Amino acid sequence: MKKHNFSAGPCILPSEVLQEAANSVLNFDNLDLSLIEISHRSKNVVAVMDEAVALVKELLGVPEGYSVIFVQGGASLQFVMTPFNLMKAEGGKAAYLNTGTWSSKALKEAKRLGNAIEVASSKDKNFNYIPKGFEIPSDVDYFHTTSNNTIFGTQIKDFPKAEGLNVCDMSSDIFSRQINVADFDMIYAGAQKNMGPAGATVVIVKDEILGKTGRDIPAYLDYQIHIDKESMFNTPPVFSVYVSMLTLRWLKGIGGVAEMEKINQAKADLLYNEIDRNSKFYGTAEKEDRSNMNACFLAHEGVDTALFDEMWKAAGISGINGHRSVGGYRASMYNALPLESVQALVDVMQEFEKK
Amino acid sequence: MKKHNFSAGPCILPSEVLQEAANSVLNFDNLDLSLIEISHRSKNVVAVMDEAVALVKELLGVPEGYSVIFVQGGASLQFVMTPFNLMKAEGGKAAYLNTGTWSSKALKEAKRLGNAIEVASSKDKNFNYIPKGFEIPSDVDYFHTTSNNTIFGTQIKDFPKAEGLNVCDMSSDIFSRQINVADFDMIYAGAQKNMGPAGATVVIVKDEILGKTGRDIPAYLDYQIHIDKESMFNTPPVFSVYVSMLTLRWLKGIGGVAEMEKINQAKADLLYNEIDRNSKFYGTAEKEDRSNMNACFLAHEGVDTALFDEMWKAAGISGINGHRSVGGYRASMYNALPLESVQALVDVMQEFEKK
Ligand SMILES: Cc1ncc(COP(=O)(O)O)c(C=O)c1O
Ligand SMILES: Cc1ncc(COP(=O)(O)O)c(C=O)c1O
Ligand SMILES: [Mg+2]
Ligand SMILES: [Mg+2]
Ligand SMILES: [Mg+2]
Ligand SMILES: [Mg+2]
Repeated sequence: MKKHNFSAGPCILPSEVLQEAANSVLNFDNLDLSLIEISHRSKNVVAVMDEAVALVKELLGVPEGYSVIFVQGGASLQFVMTPFNLMKAEGGKAAYLNTGTWSSKALKEAKRLGNAIEVASSKDKNFNYIPKGFEIPSDVDYFHTTSNNTIFGTQIKDFPKAEGLNVCDMSSDIFSRQINVADFDMIYAGAQKNMGPAGATVVIVKDEILGKTGRDIPAYLDYQIHIDKESMFNTPPVFSVYVSMLTLRWLKGIGGVAEMEKINQAKADLLYNEIDRNSKFYGTAEKEDRSNMNACFLAHEGVDTALFDEMWKAAGISGINGHRSVGGYRASMYNALPLESVQALVDVMQEFEKK
Repeated sequence: MKKHNFSAGPCILPSEVLQEAANSVLNFDNLDLSLIEISHRSKNVVAVMDEAVALVKELLGVPEGYSVIFVQGGASLQFVMTPFNLMKAEGGKAAYLNTGTWSSKALKEAKRLGNAIEVASSKDKNFNYIPKGFEIPSDVDYFHTTSNNTIFGTQIKDFPKAEGLNVCDMSSDIFSRQINVADFDMIYAGAQKNMGPAGATVVIVKDEILGKTGRDIPAYLDYQIHIDKESMFNTPPVFSVYVSMLTLRWLKGIGGVAEMEKINQAKADLLYNEIDRNSKFYGTAEKEDRSNMNACFLAHEGVDTALFDEMWKAAGISGINGHRSVGGYRASMYNALPLESVQALVDVMQEFEKK
């Protein structure tokens, strides 16, 4: 029996996508060859890359003047590539909103290349809220946010906007809700939440912002090179891009991001209502900043969590252990997680309350 | 019918590996979860990473004092990481042997960070030989070679040795022949030839050479960080590492690198003998420098290649079109290509000669 997979990432993917991915590992496009043993320059793999890019553009409504590329290295390499591409070589300045572990790591990389400042931080309360009402200096090259804080279960609902360029790490909520791409100059996201297997990262970047820093950028780190070579500057992570493409096809099939957002809202409402209602548990994030992707909750003092742990495991639930930075539980409800899985967890929570 | 797959990379993998990879995409380790939808920190994925590293060490006889890591970004990111980690920040100097497109690209990245020189080049003859008898300055931080030139079909048989550190890009012949790892301070290789799918790169590095440049290295580019985090600094390319691990298990099963080398020698002898014997074709690389992985050959003037192309396609052969830099044909005979596939190509060449 398939598990109720609440893993925080890499995470659940649609079962029809997994089936098709497995088939293509054996025989891709009826070529009598595996997807993973043919040239990335073959017309079939180029078609996969093109469709993946087209689906990203269509599903997010990417306006004219933006490029979409797939690169390797995860979001962590984007922490490095962002300042290399956007921070001026002389007198470079960037501002970061620090909402958790990932924002902190991104900021650290920018500091190596120039004057990167933290405009606000929620570290004082273990990142359980999104800072608001702060000032962003008007003279920064770019301002960086993290849309969803995978570890601490908070999510930006109203994006603050800087006068300079606006850059966002959307690794853990891209394609989960509607966003206005035109509000951003650059968006990046590791595939391994709502898109596909680890190993690919999507970058959506406004073309006109590139090439303006005066930096000599190493080739692999240069967005313009990946754009010019249509993500084939070097051998791309073919399998990860292919499975991402399949997942985006699936998303389009269920009605796109607007429809997905409704389903995700229903899942989040179901679980957060139960966390609030249930006398044994409480949520850790401020209510108004709660993430619809990652719900972090703790048991009240004195609650027998060993029994609860036994019960959810017996119900076929997996992946709800909290991150060590928060403890307790973290139920990640990415796109491919069905409402039934959330219901299964809620059922266990209710059963447990009665014991 | 499975094709005779001579692709230059990504390239043929053992069919039992493909079968097991497909199974694990559906249900990994009987977890009732896919390999690509579970946490990289789960004990099953950590076990995959550990086994992959152990197999690299065992199969290549990696001595004590070396670390083995898997990173993303392909060999192209190693072109960047090499100088970042090994070239001194002040007065850094490196030497490169230029034997083809990949060496040239590697050299270009080093030049951005310091004084990188070309000690010798075979560009004068379209890289159809390996330069010999050149001097390597004794004061360079490191000396870089490319063991096998995938595009031009040449291979270093006797590695020149520098007084400084010796670094080698073995992307297209690692695990194909015995090497003495102790002769090198660092070896890197993209997975997508003899190891697995695109998306993972293996780096074998002598621990004591790191941390000596005085450079502030971006986290993702820092070998020491990947070593300290056992290739889990960030989400690793799980699928690519897993399939690489399966391929290395397969290699161990057939008797390891020593046995593989004999098989590869037999395949190369079979094809090169035919290229030499056959009146319609000739090889492009100098005989003493011929690659056992990639055999490049051209048809003599006036030969009807359209007919030949029809014939090999009809025989179920794929991937032997030459790279545009050389033209003609390139038959790549990586580890997983069976001798029977080479025989099939030789048969077609002989049949064609008689027409
Ligand atoms: C919001 C966010 N940013 C960045 C990262 C780091 O991603 P990667 O492991 O692909 O480098 C993660 C990983 O979980 C994340 O959730
Ligand atoms: C010898 C060699 N080095 C480097 C590369 C570049 O590798 P990647 O595409 O993984 O960056 C290749 C690719 O074919 C290669 O054959
Ligand atoms: Mg976080
Ligand atoms: Mg409660
Ligand atoms: Mg070459
Ligand atoms: Mg001949």
